[in-house]
Order: sequence, then structure tokens, then C-alpha cells
Amino acid sequence: MFEVLFAHIEGKIHLTDQEKERIKPLFISRKLRRRQYLLQAEEICTHLTFVTKGLLRSYNVDDKGNEHINQFAWEGWWISDFYSFLTQEKAIFNIDAIEETEVLMISLQNYEELTVQVPAMDRYFRILYQNSLVTKDRRLMSSTTHTAEEKYLQFAKRYAQILQRIPQHLIASYLGLAPETISRIRRKWVSKEAI
Amino acid sequence: MFEVLFAHIEGKIHLTDQEKERIKPLFISRKLRRRQYLLQAEEICTHLTFVTKGLLRSYNVDDKGNEHINQFAWEGWWISDFYSFLTQEKAIFNIDAIEETEVLMISLQNYEELTVQVPAMDRYFRILYQNSLVTKDRRLMSSTTHTAEEKYLQFAKRYAQILQRIPQHLIASYLGLAPETISRIRRKWVSKEAI
Repeated sequence: MFEVLFAHIEGKIHLTDQEKERIKPLFISRKLRRRQYLLQAEEICTHLTFVTKGLLRSYNVDDKGNEHINQFAWEGWWISDFYSFLTQEKAIFNIDAIEETEVLMISLQNYEELTVQVPAMDRYFRILYQNSLVTKDRRLMSSTTHTAEEKYLQFAKRYAQILQRIPQHLIASYLGLAPETISRIRRKWVSKEAI
Repeated sequence: MFEVLFAHIEGKIHLTDQEKERIKPLFISRKLRRRQYLLQAEEICTHLTFVTKGLLRSYNVDDKGNEHINQFAWEGWWISDFYSFLTQEKAIFNIDAIEETEVLMISLQNYEELTVQVPAMDRYFRILYQNSLVTKDRRLMSSTTHTAEEKYLQFAKRYAQILQRIPQHLIASYLGLAPETISRIRRKWVSKEAI
């Protein structure tokens, strides 16, 4: 399971074999069935989770019972309620599995230990968070300035690799659009591509 | 000017005098008059900016000409169009000075050089970005789930130190509320405190 994690880390920094051996015992592994919860709102998010196989989503539920998807995470992605993890206060997000999933998880204490044991991991997380900030900034702006069609096409481009694995109603929830809107846009683009 | 920057960095990591001397030449300093632009949308954001004195804001302007404030930055804060800085694509944010301001600025090349020259800076930025991600997550949620009053009180608490320095209509723009709403909430709280 560590191959996926190490491949992701080595996409950003160099790791020695010795460093890899120091990293391994700081993680625990876990398997999730489809629809199984990794985290429920109101719990404390005790671990950062790295997906080695499968697909997860994080989402919150508003007062009217509507789900709003915050993030999808598949092979090579991290997922958590980051605020809850760092502050050890209650989570506002739920995280559950869309497919059968395998993950590696690290506790807050081991996360702090990780960057002390392997200082290069500070650089890995610096680059990871930097990319994440940029994505969030643009998503926030996109949500207020783009049309439904622009939003969907942007999503389809960015998530091309796993687009077929995410049910349409979940993409709608992520983009804040009605499922029918997504269907309409997809029909339009399928017929365009056929020309 | 470097005292403010080094104090901020040393709040998160230890720096030796030698490391400080390596950091200094990677920055340039600049002064801004009130209302002067540091960055305009459609330009490339060439530098990350650290405020040593004064107050800046970043904002975008929608199709109807309305300003939406993204961030305030005063002594000890970083500000940029981070996406534009990292990708060197066009900025979507404007940044200008609310007060007379003094800043230290670092180019993308020097920013990369900085973490190579002083590896501990990876840790500094890792912690900085980690905090920033958490703030953004909660702001995004707050914007959809909180009432106007909750939003204002949260802002007033978080920005207590500089609340008096930010004009009321700019706070309204940051929170996505009408200026009259802010006035109403403030009147209510002032009269409560008087009881």
C-alpha cells in the first residue's frame, strides 16, 4: 500500500530508503466498504487519510438536510476535516466511501513526528498545501462567477481521470448544480462530439 | 523592516543569524500610498508580499462592477494572488492599500531559492499554509450556513486587533453583506454592551 504514498511523495521530493522505513510505522492502514463512514460530523477527525485505492468524498449536510460535497479523493489524494484534525475540535464534514477503498492514516501526533523525523516532509506538505490553496481560491471564485456549463466543463477537465467513477448526482452536489442541469450539459457535449 | 518578518517567522520556527542574512537579500522593500495598487487584475502577480506596516486588501470585481473583498492583510500578514504567483498566469484579484503601507516582497525565483537556502522555511510555509487552508475551509462553510449577525461577530472576534482600522463598507464587502446590515448589528451590540 505504501507504493502509492511513496510515489506521490517522490513526485515532489526525494526520499531515501532509510526515510521510507521511518515513515511506514507512523501510518496505520484500513479498508472501507462502499458507503462506510471514515468520519462523521460532530466527531473529532483524528487522522489525515491518504487513499491508496478507491474513492471517498467529504460533505456536510445543511439545516434542510441537503448534502454539499466538499471534496472527492481517490488514489494519491489526501482527505480529512483539516480544521478538526489540527484543532481536535468537532468535525463539520462527513467522509464516506463511494467505492471499496483502502487508505493509510496518520494521527496528529505522528504527523508532527513525521516532519521532525523526516524534515523533507515539510517541503512535501508545503508544496501540497500550496497547490490546495490555489485550487480552493479558484473554486471559490468560480462558484460566484461561472455559468453552470463552465463549471461542469472545468470539473470534467480537471477530474478527467475519474469522471466516469463519480455518480452524476454527486458531481451536481459538488458543483452546487441541479442533477438535471448536469444531464443537459452532458447531452449537449455528447452530441457536439458526435458531429 | 525585517524585524516584523523575522518575528513572524520565529513565531513558527527557529532562525540562526546566518540564515537571516541569507534571507534578507531575497526580498525587496516598497512603500505604498493610500489607495495605491500593489497588483491589478489581468497583470501577473510577480511577488509574494509581506506587510511590515499598514493595511492592504485583495478583491475582485464582478461583471456588474461590484467589489468582493477576498482578504485583508496588515502587519505580519502575507498577501498575493497566489494562483497567479505560482502559475505566472493572469491575476483575478486587485490588491491595494487602505492605509499608507510598507511591504517586503519576494519573487517566485527567490521564493524557490529561499527554501533551498534555508530549508527550515519549508516548515514555516507548511505551517502558514496549513493555517490558511483551515481558515478558508471554515469561511467557505460560514458563508453558506451562518446568519449575518453570526458572520459579523465571528469577523469582529477574529479581527479584533484591527477592526477599528477597516472601514465598515469594506467589512460588508468581505462578508458579502449590505453595509446597512453591519450598521444594524453594530448598533444592537453597542446598546447591549451599554446595559
